[in-house]
Amino acid sequence: MTITDNILYFDACNTNELAEQYGTPLIVLSESELIRKSNEIRDDFLEKYDNVRAVYASKAFLNTAICKIINREGLGLDVVSGGELYTALHAQFPAEKIIFHGNNKSYAELKMAIEAGVGRIVVDNASELDLIAHLTSALNLPVNILFRITPGIHSDTHAYIATADKDSKFGFPLETIPSAYALAEKSPNIIPLGLHFHVGSQLQNTTAHLSALDVALGLIEQLHDMGTRVFELNTGGGYGVKYTETDTEMPLRDFTDPIMARLKSWASKTGIDRPQIIIEPGRWLVANAGLTLYRVGASKHIPGIRTYISVDGGIPDNIRPALYTAKYRAVIANKMQAPLSEAVTIAGKCCESGDILIKDIRLPQTRRGDLLAVFGTGAYTESMSSNYNYLPRPAVVLVNQGHASLIRTRESYSDLIRRDIVPKYLE
Amino acid sequence: MTITDNILYFDACNTNELAEQYGTPLIVLSESELIRKSNEIRDDFLEKYDNVRAVYASKAFLNTAICKIINREGLGLDVVSGGELYTALHAQFPAEKIIFHGNNKSYAELKMAIEAGVGRIVVDNASELDLIAHLTSALNLPVNILFRITPGIHSDTHAYIATADKDSKFGFPLETIPSAYALAEKSPNIIPLGLHFHVGSQLQNTTAHLSALDVALGLIEQLHDMGTRVFELNTGGGYGVKYTETDTEMPLRDFTDPIMARLKSWASKTGIDRPQIIIEPGRWLVANAGLTLYRVGASKHIPGIRTYISVDGGIPDNIRPALYTAKYRAVIANKMQAPLSEAVTIAGKCCESGDILIKDIRLPQTRRGDLLAVFGTGAYTESMSSNYNYLPRPAVVLVNQGHASLIRTRESYSDLIRRDIVPKYLE
Repeated sequence: MTITDNILYFDACNTNELAEQYGTPLIVLSESELIRKSNEIRDDFLEKYDNVRAVYASKAFLNTAICKIINREGLGLDVVSGGELYTALHAQFPAEKIIFHGNNKSYAELKMAIEAGVGRIVVDNASELDLIAHLTSALNLPVNILFRITPGIHSDTHAYIATADKDSKFGFPLETIPSAYALAEKSPNIIPLGLHFHVGSQLQNTTAHLSALDVALGLIEQLHDMGTRVFELNTGGGYGVKYTETDTEMPLRDFTDPIMARLKSWASKTGIDRPQIIIEPGRWLVANAGLTLYRVGASKHIPGIRTYISVDGGIPDNIRPALYTAKYRAVIANKMQAPLSEAVTIAGKCCESGDILIKDIRLPQTRRGDLLAVFGTGAYTESMSSNYNYLPRPAVVLVNQGHASLIRTRESYSDLIRRDIVPKYLE
Repeated sequence: MTITDNILYFDACNTNELAEQYGTPLIVLSESELIRKSNEIRDDFLEKYDNVRAVYASKAFLNTAICKIINREGLGLDVVSGGELYTALHAQFPAEKIIFHGNNKSYAELKMAIEAGVGRIVVDNASELDLIAHLTSALNLPVNILFRITPGIHSDTHAYIATADKDSKFGFPLETIPSAYALAEKSPNIIPLGLHFHVGSQLQNTTAHLSALDVALGLIEQLHDMGTRVFELNTGGGYGVKYTETDTEMPLRDFTDPIMARLKSWASKTGIDRPQIIIEPGRWLVANAGLTLYRVGASKHIPGIRTYISVDGGIPDNIRPALYTAKYRAVIANKMQAPLSEAVTIAGKCCESGDILIKDIRLPQTRRGDLLAVFGTGAYTESMSSNYNYLPRPAVVLVNQGHASLIRTRESYSDLIRRDIVPKYLE
C-alpha cells in the first residue's frame, strides 16, 4: 500500500481508477502479497527444514487464476469439496499435490478424487473409511490417506472456527485410530500414510498447535509400538492474521519453529523417525492480499448517537462482521491525506440491521461518491459471498506492481435468474 | 404434510421420490401453503378492511415463478434492490404494484425504478430524497414516494433484525419528516403519499407494531396540523412464524386486528381520515411453505458426549443457524414411523465447526442414505445461499397437491467458475 497525494495505491495500482474501470463493490487481490507470503513459507519453512510441505487451504479464496498462482509458487492445494477439486483440476493443478479434506465427503466426490489421483485424502471418520475401501476396490485404484484425529484440545478463538475440541464433528476419536489404521492396512488399495489435525483458525499463539502436536506424537509412539510407521503429520493451518490496527500478526516461523523444535526433541528422545510435516495456511496467505472497494452512498446523521455511512455492498460480499463479529480497518481511498473527523459506522446495503461492516471507525469527512477501501478482505469474503437481497456478486481484480487483470467478472442481473424455470401453468 | 407408511409427503408429494429425481440438497416449496397464507391475508385483512393493501417482502425468497404466484394471488411485491426489481419486471410483475425499499439505493437503481414506473419508492433518507429530486427532474417522470421513519422503539427480537431503534441505519429521524415532506412537495415530479415503518422480524407479539403505530400516528397528526395529508401508512412486516415445536405462530389477524382497531379509534378521536394501511409479510408467507431435503452421509459417535450426523448441505444453503442461532425441526423422511432414539446433532458439510444445522434433535436410528427433511426453510435460506466451500446451490422444486415442477435448476460445478478469467501470463 502506497499513498500518492490523496489516492490509495494497492500493489502500485490506483484504487480510484480500478473502481472506475471495474465498478464497485470490487475485490482487489494483490499478487505481490501472495508472492511475499509464499516466499515467507519457502524461506522460513520449506527451505529451512527437511521433509516438509505446505499446501494452501483453498476454501479461504478459490478461483482458477488463484490456483495457477499457488501452483507456480510451489505450494500444494487443500480442497474440501467436489467443487473445489473440480476448480483445481480445471486449472490444471497437479492432482498429486492436492489434499482432500471434509467431514462428509460424498461417494461421488470420493470417486472423483480417487479417479483424479489426488495426493492425499484426509479420511475424517470410520464411515468414510468404509466408503473408500469399497471405492478403491471397485475402481481398483490406489489412494493415499491420512486420518484426521480429534486431538481433544480447546483453542482460543471463535467457537465456529475452533475445530479440535473432543466434542467436534471432525475427525476420529484418538482411541479409534489404531483399529482404523489396521483396517486401512488390510485394504489392498488404501495406503495409510499418517495423521492430520486442525486446531482452529485465526490463532494468535502456538498453544493449541503444540498441545495437539503432543497428542499426535503420543499417538505416533503408540502406533510405533504396534509396528506401524507414521510417515506424515499434517498439522493444518490456523495462523492468525492482522485485521485491525490493534491486531498483531505473528510471522509464520513463530508458529512453525516451535513445532519443528518440539518434533526434533521428540525424535531424539524417542528414537522414532519424525514424520514429514505438512502445514496448510489459508487465511494467513490470502487475507491481507485482499482489499474491497465500495462506493459510498447515503449517509444518516443521528445527533448525539451515531453517523451511518452506507456503501454499495455488505453482507452479500462480506458476511464476516455479521457471522463472526469480525473487525476490519478501512480508509477513504480518495481522501488519504484528509484529517480524520468523527467516528462513523459503515452500513451495508442490505435491508437488515445486522448489515454493518465496521462500527465506530474514524474517517475523513465522507460524502456520496467517495471510495471506501476495506483492508484484509482476501479470506472468507468472496468465498462465502451470496446474492442476499439479490445483489450481484463483485468482480475480482488481480493486481501486481501497477498491472491489473480481471480474474472474475461481476455478476449481472440476468445471472441472478439464469437457473429459473417457470412452469407452463404459471406463465 | 401427510405421512404414508414411513414416507413423508409434502403437499402430497413423496419427498423420497423428489430427492431421487432432483437430487439433494433440495429446496421444496409448497404452492398450496403459499395459497393458504395468501387466502388468510385476503380473508382476514384485505376483504375484512377497506383501504388496505398487502405486499410480499421478496427478499425472503425470490424467484421468477414465485413472482408469478404472488401476482396471481393478488399481492404486491416489496423489492430492495435493482436485482430484485429486475427479477420482478422479468416475471412481468405489474410495476405499479411494486414497492422499492432500501437504505442505500444507488442512482442506477432509482433510475431503473422510476423508468419502470414502480408503485412506490420508500425513501430512506435525505440524501436519497435529493437523488430522487434530481432524477425525476432529469427524466421528467413522476414518482410516488413514502418516507421511511425511524420510530425509535425497540422490538424484542435478534439485534440483527430489530430495525426500528433510534440508533438504526434505516429511515428518517422523526423530527426531520416535516421538512422532508415540504421539500418533496416542492419537487414537481415527486408525489409524497405517506409514511413507512418496519419494526423488525420474527416478532411474537404486537407490542412493537403498536408502539410504532402510535409514533406514526402522532407524526400524522403533526403533519395534519401543518396542512399535509398522509394518504398511506406502510406498517412493514415482522410477523413471527413457527420454526420449532415449542414456537407458537400467531394468526395474521392477531397482528393486524389490533393495528386496525387502534387506527379506527385514533381516526374517530382525531377526526383525521385514516390512511391506507399496507402490510408487508415476507417470512410469514413463505417460511413454512419451504422444506429442505438432505441426504445423510457420515456419522460420528463420541461416547458420552454427542452423536454427529452429517448431511450434504449446511451453511451454504442455510446460514440462519450460524448467523442467528436459528432453530429448526426435522424428521427422517424415510423413517416417519420409526421410534425416536437418542438425541443427535445435525452437522453440515462445511469445513467449519460452526456448520451445525440442528443441535440435539431426537431422530430415529439414522444411517447413511437416509433423507433428512428440515421444516420451515422457505425464508432467508435460498435467498442468502452461497457457494461456501464451493458447494453448488440447490435446486428448487415447487410442489402442489402431488405435482412437482422444477423452478430453479441445481448449480453445476462449471457454474462455479463460469465468471473466472485467467490472465495470459498465468496460463
